[in-house]
Amino acid sequence: MTQQLDWAKGFLLDFALDTGASHGATPTKRNLSQMQDMYQDAKAAARLVAGGDPLVYEFYELGAPEHAGDLAFGTSIVYPGKVGDEYFMTKGHFHTVLDTAEVYYCLAGKGGMLIENPEGDTNFFELTPGQAVYVPKRYAHRSVNTGTEKLVTFFVFRGDAGHNYGAIETEGFRKLVVDCNGAPVLIDNPKWAGGGA
Amino acid sequence: MTQQLDWAKGFLLDFALDTGASHGATPTKRNLSQMQDMYQDAKAAARLVAGGDPLVYEFYELGAPEHAGDLAFGTSIVYPGKVGDEYFMTKGHFHTVLDTAEVYYCLAGKGGMLIENPEGDTNFFELTPGQAVYVPKRYAHRSVNTGTEKLVTFFVFRGDAGHNYGAIETEGFRKLVVDCNGAPVLIDNPKWAGGGA
Repeated sequence: MTQQLDWAKGFLLDFALDTGASHGATPTKRNLSQMQDMYQDAKAAARLVAGGDPLVYEFYELGAPEHAGDLAFGTSIVYPGKVGDEYFMTKGHFHTVLDTAEVYYCLAGKGGMLIENPEGDTNFFELTPGQAVYVPKRYAHRSVNTGTEKLVTFFVFRGDAGHNYGAIETEGFRKLVVDCNGAPVLIDNPKWAGGGA
Repeated sequence: MTQQLDWAKGFLLDFALDTGASHGATPTKRNLSQMQDMYQDAKAAARLVAGGDPLVYEFYELGAPEHAGDLAFGTSIVYPGKVGDEYFMTKGHFHTVLDTAEVYYCLAGKGGMLIENPEGDTNFFELTPGQAVYVPKRYAHRSVNTGTEKLVTFFVFRGDAGHNYGAIETEGFRKLVVDCNGAPVLIDNPKWAGGGA
C-alpha cells in the first residue's frame, strides 16, 4: 500500500534498516531481462533470463517534485548474483542536471559504487554497512553487489536531478566489476568505445 | 582524526549505524550552556549548567561546498535528558536558502522532528529507527529526544542551504515538546511573540 506523500508539508516514511523495505511505498523492480545487454557475457545472461529472469535490483521512486529545492530519497536493494563473472548491478546513470551530487549510505550487505565522469575519471568505492559514499557532481554511478546478501543503501539527491542513461545503456561504464577468484576486480570494458560517439 | 574529503572526486566516510559516530570526521558539540536561553525553565537550565553543563547534542559539519549541486550530510546525535519538563533538543534553524528541503533518516533512539514555517504551520513527526522524515522547503526544524537513549539520525541537505537561526535563537519555535506523565506533548511556547517582530 502506497501512502500519500505531502512534499509541501512534510511526511514520515519507513525504510527497514536491515532490508531497506518500506511498508508505505512500492519499489520499482528491475529483472535481468530489462538490462540483459548491459552485461558482458551474453550467453550467461540469456541462460539466466530463460531460467527464470532473476530480480537484479529494486529501488524507490517516490515522485519528489522536480524542483531544485526538493530532495528525492529512498533505498536501493541490489540482489546478490553474477552474470558470468560480472556481479549484479544497477543500470547506473548520469544526472540529467549533470552538476548535481548524490549521497548513498550503506545499511547492509557488501559491494561498491562505481563512478565515472565524462572525462574518464573512474573510481570504485567499496561499501560495507555504515559507509557513506559521496557521488560528486558530474559522475555517473552504479551500485554493484559483490557479496552474498542484499546490498542495501539509503540515497538522497536533488529533486530535479533526473536520470540520464545515455550511452551507458548501450556501451556501459568504462570499467566492469568482475569476480576473480572470489574477490572483485575492475577490468576495462571491451564494449566501451568513446562514450557513444 | 579527520580525513580529507574530496567533494569534486568523491569519497567514503563512515558513520556507525548504531551510534552515528564517525572515525573519519570530528563532530561539533553543543553543551547546554551554548543554548541555555532556548529552554523554558531558566532555573532548571542554570542548575544543570552549574552541575556539569551536559552535552545536549553533536553533529557533523563536513564542509560541503556551498554550491546548489552539492549535498551536505552526516549524522546528528541528540542525548537523552530534560531541562525541567522540556526534552533535550537541537537549536533548530531555517535554511538561509529558505526554499530547500532536508531528509533525516532515524538510525537509533526515539524522538521527533518539530517543524514550522513562517506562516505558522507546525508539525511534530515522531521518529523511531527506520523512519525517514521529509522536512519540506521553508520549514524550520529541530530534533527532539523524547527517549532514554541517544537519538541518532542521518541527514542530507543542499550544500548551499545554510543555517538561519534568526528569531529561533531568541524566541524559539511556536511549540515546545515537553514530558507530561512520561509521554511527549506539544504546548504553546509562551515566549513566542510573532517571530521576532
